[in-house]
Amino acid sequence: MRLGLDIGGTKIDAVAIADDDMRLLSRVRVATGFGAEAVVRNGQDAALQAAEAAQAAAAPAARIASVGIGIPGIVDAERGVVRHAVNLGLTEVELGGALAERLGAPVRVENDVNAASLGAYHLLALTGSMAYLNLGTGLAAGFVNDGALWRGARGTAGEIGHIPVDPHGERCACGQRGCLETVASGGWVARKWGGTAALPVLELFDAADAGDPRAVALRAELVDGAAAAVRILVLTGDVETVVVGGGVSQLGAWLLEPLRASLERQALESRFLASLALSSRVRLVPLDRPVAAVGAALSGVRPEAAA
Amino acid sequence: MRLGLDIGGTKIDAVAIADDDMRLLSRVRVATGFGAEAVVRNGQDAALQAAEAAQAAAAPAARIASVGIGIPGIVDAERGVVRHAVNLGLTEVELGGALAERLGAPVRVENDVNAASLGAYHLLALTGSMAYLNLGTGLAAGFVNDGALWRGARGTAGEIGHIPVDPHGERCACGQRGCLETVASGGWVARKWGGTAALPVLELFDAADAGDPRAVALRAELVDGAAAAVRILVLTGDVETVVVGGGVSQLGAWLLEPLRASLERQALESRFLASLALSSRVRLVPLDRPVAAVGAALSGVRPEAAA
Repeated sequence: MRLGLDIGGTKIDAVAIADDDMRLLSRVRVATGFGAEAVVRNGQDAALQAAEAAQAAAAPAARIASVGIGIPGIVDAERGVVRHAVNLGLTEVELGGALAERLGAPVRVENDVNAASLGAYHLLALTGSMAYLNLGTGLAAGFVNDGALWRGARGTAGEIGHIPVDPHGERCACGQRGCLETVASGGWVARKWGGTAALPVLELFDAADAGDPRAVALRAELVDGAAAAVRILVLTGDVETVVVGGGVSQLGAWLLEPLRASLERQALESRFLASLALSSRVRLVPLDRPVAAVGAALSGVRPEAAA
Repeated sequence: MRLGLDIGGTKIDAVAIADDDMRLLSRVRVATGFGAEAVVRNGQDAALQAAEAAQAAAAPAARIASVGIGIPGIVDAERGVVRHAVNLGLTEVELGGALAERLGAPVRVENDVNAASLGAYHLLALTGSMAYLNLGTGLAAGFVNDGALWRGARGTAGEIGHIPVDPHGERCACGQRGCLETVASGGWVARKWGGTAALPVLELFDAADAGDPRAVALRAELVDGAAAAVRILVLTGDVETVVVGGGVSQLGAWLLEPLRASLERQALESRFLASLALSSRVRLVPLDRPVAAVGAALSGVRPEAAA
C-alpha cells in the first residue's frame, strides 16, 4: 500500500491506497499539533493508523511501499525539508528523513498545493494538462501535465496569488499592491466581511443570497477574482482544464455557477477571450474525496514506478 | 541541411543550418509580399536561395532534410495551417503542405513567437526551463523546457499580453481593459508617443535620455510593464530564465538595464519578490543573430530526430 498524509493547520488527513489500482483502502484523521516534534509524532501516528486500518479492512499482508506528504510552507522536495510553515510552528524540519526512519519506507514531501493537484488530476481521471487553483486562505496554483507535476525551476511554480492585478489595490502581506490574493482568496474576503462565523465565506454567500448589498459586492469581487485567476492560468500555460479546490471550493455550485457566469460575461466583451472557452474548462475538485491526501500518496510514488 | 524561414510583415528571413551541429550555413532575406500566393512563392524562393547559398559556401552535396517556418497568426502546427495572419493578408492557408510539395522536404509550421523561443534557447545554449518574452508590436511569450516547446493544450500558451493588470486601464483591441499589452508593447507605446520616426521606440528612448518628461514617463511605463511580464512568467511557470526578444529588445542595454532596475526596485518592497531573484533571471536575446529563423529551422527537426 501507499500512504498519503495531508498535514493541515489543525488536522492530518491520512489515507492508504492500493499499489496496483490506487483505490482508497483507508482514511483516518488526527490532530496536527504545533512544532516540529508534535508534527513528526502525529504524522507517524496518522500513517500507522491508516496502514493498520487498511490491513484490517482490505489488505492484511500489505506493507507500506511509500509515504507521500503534502504540507504548507516552502518544500525542498528533493531533500524532504520543510521551511517556514508558520501555522504549524515549523521553521526548518527534515520531515522526510525523520518519518522515513520511523516508518521504514521512503518518504516524499511535497508542497500541499502540488499534492492536491496530483490528487485532483487522478480523482477526476484527467488527461493532458491541468492547473489546480487552490482558493483557500490564500490563492495559489499547481500544474500537472500527463500525470506529472511541474514544480518549476526553483519549486515556486503557481504562486499566482502574488500577481498584481490592480495598481491602486490593497497592500498585500507580500509587500506588493493589488495582488490577486487580496481580492480572490478566502482569507482576504473573510477579513473584509468580518462576522463571527466558523466559515466566514459561507456566511458571506448566505448574506449575499439574502440580498445584503455589501455581501453581494464582496461575493462578486471574490468570484471575479477567481475568474481572473482562471484567465491567468489559461493565458500563460494554456492548460486544458482548471480545477478549483481549496476551502472556498467547498461552496460547490454556489461558487462554480457564478464563476462560470463571470467568465462568460467577460467572453461577451472579448472575442479573443470567447475563443479560449474558459468557462467550459473549469471544474470543481470532488468535494467528498480526500484529494490532498490521495495526491500526497501519489506523490510518494517514484516516477519510474508510476510509469 | 535544415532550412528555417521567419516570415514577417515585410521580409522573410531564411537560414540554412547544418544537420549535425546546427551551425549557421547561410542567411538570405526576401520581401514577404501580401496574400497567400505571394507568401508561398516568396517562401519557396527564400528557402531555395538559402539552400543554394549553403551549398555554395559550405556543403555542396547537402540536401534539404527539413524546413521549419515561423509565422504570425494562429498556427495549427499539426496540420501546417495558418489562420488570421492579418498583416500578411492570410485568412487560412495550408502553408505546410504547399511548401512541402514545392521543396520536396517535410515542412513544420510554427507560431513565430514559439519559433523564436526555440532559437533563443538554442543560441543562448540554455538548459532547463525558459520563457521567451516577445516585446514587439504586441506582447506574447513562448515556453521551452529541456529543449522542447510547450505549446499548450490548444496552441495558445504564452498569450500573456492579454492579462489585465489595471481595471482602470485603456481598452485593448481584444475587448478587455488594461491588458499588459496596452502598457508594455512597442506598438502601444509608439502610438502614445506619436512622432514620425521609423523606429518610434528608439526615438522615445532618445527623448527620454534628453530629459523630455513625457518620454521619461512613457519609457518608465514600458519598462515597468515589461517587468510585470517577467514577474507573471516566473510566478506562474517558475522558469529559470526569461529571455527578452522582439523589436523592442533591439534597444539592448538601453532596455535591459532599466528593466533589471525596475525588478530590483520591486524586490526592495517585497521580500517575497526578492526571494525570486527576478533580475538575475532576465537575459536579452542575441541581437546580431537570426534567432527566429534559426528557431524555425530547429522546429523543423522532428522530436525523435533531435533527441
